[in-house]
Amino acid sequence: MKVVLIGSGNIATQLGKSLLKSGHQIVQIYNHNLSNAKKLAGILSSSFTDKIEFINRDAGVYIIAIKDDKIVEVASCLKLNSNLVVHTSGSVDMNILQPCSQHIGVFYPLQTISKEQELSFNKIPLCIECNTENAGQILNKLASSISEKVYTVTSEQRKILHLAAVFASNFSNHMYAIAQELLEQSGFGLEMLKPLIKETAARIDSASPIKLQTGPAQREDFEIIKKHIEMLKNNPDLKDIYEKLTRNIIRMKKM
Amino acid sequence: MKVVLIGSGNIATQLGKSLLKSGHQIVQIYNHNLSNAKKLAGILSSSFTDKIEFINRDAGVYIIAIKDDKIVEVASCLKLNSNLVVHTSGSVDMNILQPCSQHIGVFYPLQTISKEQELSFNKIPLCIECNTENAGQILNKLASSISEKVYTVTSEQRKILHLAAVFASNFSNHMYAIAQELLEQSGFGLEMLKPLIKETAARIDSASPIKLQTGPAQREDFEIIKKHIEMLKNNPDLKDIYEKLTRNIIRMKKM
Repeated sequence: MKVVLIGSGNIATQLGKSLLKSGHQIVQIYNHNLSNAKKLAGILSSSFTDKIEFINRDAGVYIIAIKDDKIVEVASCLKLNSNLVVHTSGSVDMNILQPCSQHIGVFYPLQTISKEQELSFNKIPLCIECNTENAGQILNKLASSISEKVYTVTSEQRKILHLAAVFASNFSNHMYAIAQELLEQSGFGLEMLKPLIKETAARIDSASPIKLQTGPAQREDFEIIKKHIEMLKNNPDLKDIYEKLTRNIIRMKKM
Repeated sequence: MKVVLIGSGNIATQLGKSLLKSGHQIVQIYNHNLSNAKKLAGILSSSFTDKIEFINRDAGVYIIAIKDDKIVEVASCLKLNSNLVVHTSGSVDMNILQPCSQHIGVFYPLQTISKEQELSFNKIPLCIECNTENAGQILNKLASSISEKVYTVTSEQRKILHLAAVFASNFSNHMYAIAQELLEQSGFGLEMLKPLIKETAARIDSASPIKLQTGPAQREDFEIIKKHIEMLKNNPDLKDIYEKLTRNIIRMKKM
């Protein structure tokens, strides 16, 4: 399939590489910053442009992989007829793309993606959504060519998935960051906790996280909880977070 | 070394297996519930008892691996002279063991441990603490025989390590539990987020969590944040947690 990539950031880069490997042709990269477009075009052997009006008009799919708040702007300038246009955001409405084409959709990879890593989309869940049967067929074919895990979702479902992903990934990473902040106060690094962090994530294959919950809150060990809160007295933000999460663990336990 | 295990729960079981494999002899298991003591004794080829006064008196080390709030009770009954007595808790004071012996210490494995898993202590950080040079030598030898990562820590440091571990492990697991609760509302299971969760934990090898932070809070994308808070309006506990963590991510970013 001929693909145009709008954007040249983390997702555009990794998606472009994966699509190329699966036999698709990346015909063009657009970025408002020409040197960024050129850089990715070099990797993907494609042409590049920084002008929306110069975007190639006969590709099979246009993938908009840019910051959420920039999608509406690009969508209002990109005028195609019946070519499929999709974005890759977890939270932006699909219909924002209506000015672009009759056939629109969403192609949302449920993964945290950086430019540098060696990444295979094969095991990454791809959530797709579209407005026409035709769009659905194209999108399904494209997604299935790079991943085993393709899910058709509604807008509502995608929004909940995105919110759940914020807890599961952004907020769990923030817990690691807090742990590091605390460790550094006592002259240690995060190194000591890495085996624990990895085991905690690996264990979810064996049972549900609710069943796997351990720690002072789960045991309702109020003596330790009191000591921990005392230790955090000089950091009211962390104290507050500790209290809220402890209370919520106890709430869930009783459900 | 001859080892007596006080307790037969998760840590006693895994520690017993590991020590046996490394050539130590588990001479006896104590548990106030005789059938539990017998069960672990069967696995470790040791004797067993449910009476503290029948505990073997000539072992090289006595490891108290029971619930935090039960340690003081056992310690007040266990009268030895100069044999080394240690507990395995992250948060209980070492000096609680003073009634037991001249030589006391702590042997705290920084890992979440369940009975069933196949576990090797080899890569698990072991934090040790003791009150005499003699105790230190024995404890270091014992710890080094099962793990490459032995750290001598102070009581203060151990308490901070334990608090950091609550954030890094108990609270990150709770984030997974919240994600699952949200997903189930929309007919999905945690399965879809497992690749993301594992990647989030694996990435900490590449950079510090503060640098790896992504998501709406990190981007200060207040439009998405507002939508998420709106989605959580029927669950004030989660809404509150979302707001607190978002605010703290922004705080840390500015540090």
